[in-house]
Amino acid sequence: MPLTSLEDVLAEQIGDLRSAEDQLIEALPKMARAASTAELREAFENHLEETRGHAERLRSVAGAIGTQVPTETCEAMKGLIKEGEEIIQEGGDPVAVDVALIAAAQRVEHYEIAAYGTARELAKELGHDDAAGLLDETLDEESAADTLLSKIATGGLLKSGVNAQASR
Amino acid sequence: MPLTSLEDVLAEQIGDLRSAEDQLIEALPKMARAASTAELREAFENHLEETRGHAERLRSVAGAIGTQVPTETCEAMKGLIKEGEEIIQEGGDPVAVDVALIAAAQRVEHYEIAAYGTARELAKELGHDDAAGLLDETLDEESAADTLLSKIATGGLLKSGVNAQASR
Repeated sequence: MPLTSLEDVLAEQIGDLRSAEDQLIEALPKMARAASTAELREAFENHLEETRGHAERLRSVAGAIGTQVPTETCEAMKGLIKEGEEIIQEGGDPVAVDVALIAAAQRVEHYEIAAYGTARELAKELGHDDAAGLLDETLDEESAADTLLSKIATGGLLKSGVNAQASR
Repeated sequence: MPLTSLEDVLAEQIGDLRSAEDQLIEALPKMARAASTAELREAFENHLEETRGHAERLRSVAGAIGTQVPTETCEAMKGLIKEGEEIIQEGGDPVAVDVALIAAAQRVEHYEIAAYGTARELAKELGHDDAAGLLDETLDEESAADTLLSKIATGGLLKSGVNAQASR
């Protein structure tokens, strides 16, 4: 379907995000189960709850923009999740696996930060202020999730991995 | 192959980025050809040159960390590029297509920002200061590319799309 206007682009962005969030709802429980550090497991579990809220919020966004949102498959999220699954399959040292899981999850968060940022700018420019406000709320939560993952990595996990390596 | 240490995780991150940059070198010329706005076409062409430099720099990083970097296929970049190709196939209004291309390209930049950020932190923590410095240079260029794309979108392109829609 050709993109005839910015409204079409916005609708496609929302369709892409809906698919991305739905895929993430399936993937996050597996990532939580694969995490060894309690703090990381909890972060994944909490983000699963948030992600369910984001999917719900996208329904409100679709209502607020008032155009038909196409059914999409977010190909990028498919690839991002595949990378997480590869880590889980590989397994290995618990700290190394946790660090790799964080790396995969931060790629996911950055995908969503870019996508929600674009959608919010488009909604704002097109005068869909309610939709822009809703998208902004999710964008804040995705950024906070990314910051928390950085903190878990640099706040002890990486150091404990380096120390374990040095003591071998 | 199980991840036995943080060195393994770093080597995998570099392998993933190498595949990502190689795929991007193939994709960027197509995105440049599909762009209607001269400023956007130039941005893609300039970023292609930078991306060739990033691929080259990753070879130096691999040398600096001194471990075997595995051959990987970056599944996420495959999906990200597929999304760009879908936009090119759909076609449509030139401004709408350009805005959608920017949206796809910013997702790519954010993927790389997350990936280079992780790799730099790992390299630093593991005492690979030369590698960390090289990764940091690329990270700066990816961030600048993302900022430029935002500027092109909000500096006129979105407004011209909104005005065109209003005048129909």
